[in-house]
Amino acid sequence: MEYPQTFNQLIECFKMLPGIGNKGAERMVYAILNMNPQQVEDFSKSLLDFKNNIHFCKKCGHICEDDICDICSDESRDQTTICIVESPKDVFAMEKLKEYHGLYHVLHGTISIMDGKTIEDLNIQSLFERLNENIKEVIIATNPTREGETTALFLAKLLAKENINTTRIANGLPIGSNIDYADELTLLKSLEGRKKI
Amino acid sequence: MEYPQTFNQLIECFKMLPGIGNKGAERMVYAILNMNPQQVEDFSKSLLDFKNNIHFCKKCGHICEDDICDICSDESRDQTTICIVESPKDVFAMEKLKEYHGLYHVLHGTISIMDGKTIEDLNIQSLFERLNENIKEVIIATNPTREGETTALFLAKLLAKENINTTRIANGLPIGSNIDYADELTLLKSLEGRKKI
Repeated sequence: MEYPQTFNQLIECFKMLPGIGNKGAERMVYAILNMNPQQVEDFSKSLLDFKNNIHFCKKCGHICEDDICDICSDESRDQTTICIVESPKDVFAMEKLKEYHGLYHVLHGTISIMDGKTIEDLNIQSLFERLNENIKEVIIATNPTREGETTALFLAKLLAKENINTTRIANGLPIGSNIDYADELTLLKSLEGRKKI
Repeated sequence: MEYPQTFNQLIECFKMLPGIGNKGAERMVYAILNMNPQQVEDFSKSLLDFKNNIHFCKKCGHICEDDICDICSDESRDQTTICIVESPKDVFAMEKLKEYHGLYHVLHGTISIMDGKTIEDLNIQSLFERLNENIKEVIIATNPTREGETTALFLAKLLAKENINTTRIANGLPIGSNIDYADELTLLKSLEGRKKI
């Protein structure tokens, strides 16, 4: 006894999503089965709308519905600082702080030997087009993972050639954590990065 | 900083799925963002195809792409036995056994006081239309949960009026389990249902 073809097709679609296996996808298709037809139609339309309307900003690579994103087109923001992040998710995380008022640049990934991704696969060309005498600081805010650190080092070298003041976000103990539970590398970074109080 | 509208819309759609909260839905929308446009189009089309092609069999209520499902239209199956289950999932589970060769009837739910579902909300009318002198046995295979048991008792009473030989699947210890870990109710059922060996 096999599932009907259209049923299997939808299972395969859900399996493309992160963290969804065979059983999970089946469960979702059964949930779709119990939705009313209008809801399924809306779901299908939302996917198409998303594909058609969500673009990457031509300047910084952040997601937006127009050619240029809200942040790039906001002239009240500090136009002299660019914060480089891995993905649009990170822009939303930084914006939640309400502390950073500069611009962003989204790389859409990292250098990764495992996935065969080099610096050329990243959104890097438009970054160097943006660099001019107005830019006072570039903050590299890639994740403190192996891939993120590699990318940060690579970028720092490229930016040094352009004579740009480049900084990297700090590593150390997260607030509310315990020193005796911290991993060695984090504790080492926290010691190295100590500041006079 | 808010997500664009079409982004939020798709998050809301994914949140309708079982076990998907706000963070999970966001994660899925980011995954959709990284798919190629053809994949997203296929996903959207699969949803529409599913809605348009998957129906419930007019006879038994199982899912199918035609009016009558494969099981009901298979004349080689035992036409004298009907197994009543809660959902199409249960039909697939029973069919995996390759031991049961009769027909099915899918209720699409159970009686549930919590959800305000009565016997009239179930796929019950077509069941009684199927009952004739040819039917020798009706097996009630609803889940051994509070709702499933209530539904089973209710159905048994209705079927008794029609003079149909009605049976209920057995409760007891699952194979491979330990008696000292079994819950009291299961152990009690297993004792009550003991058989001569």
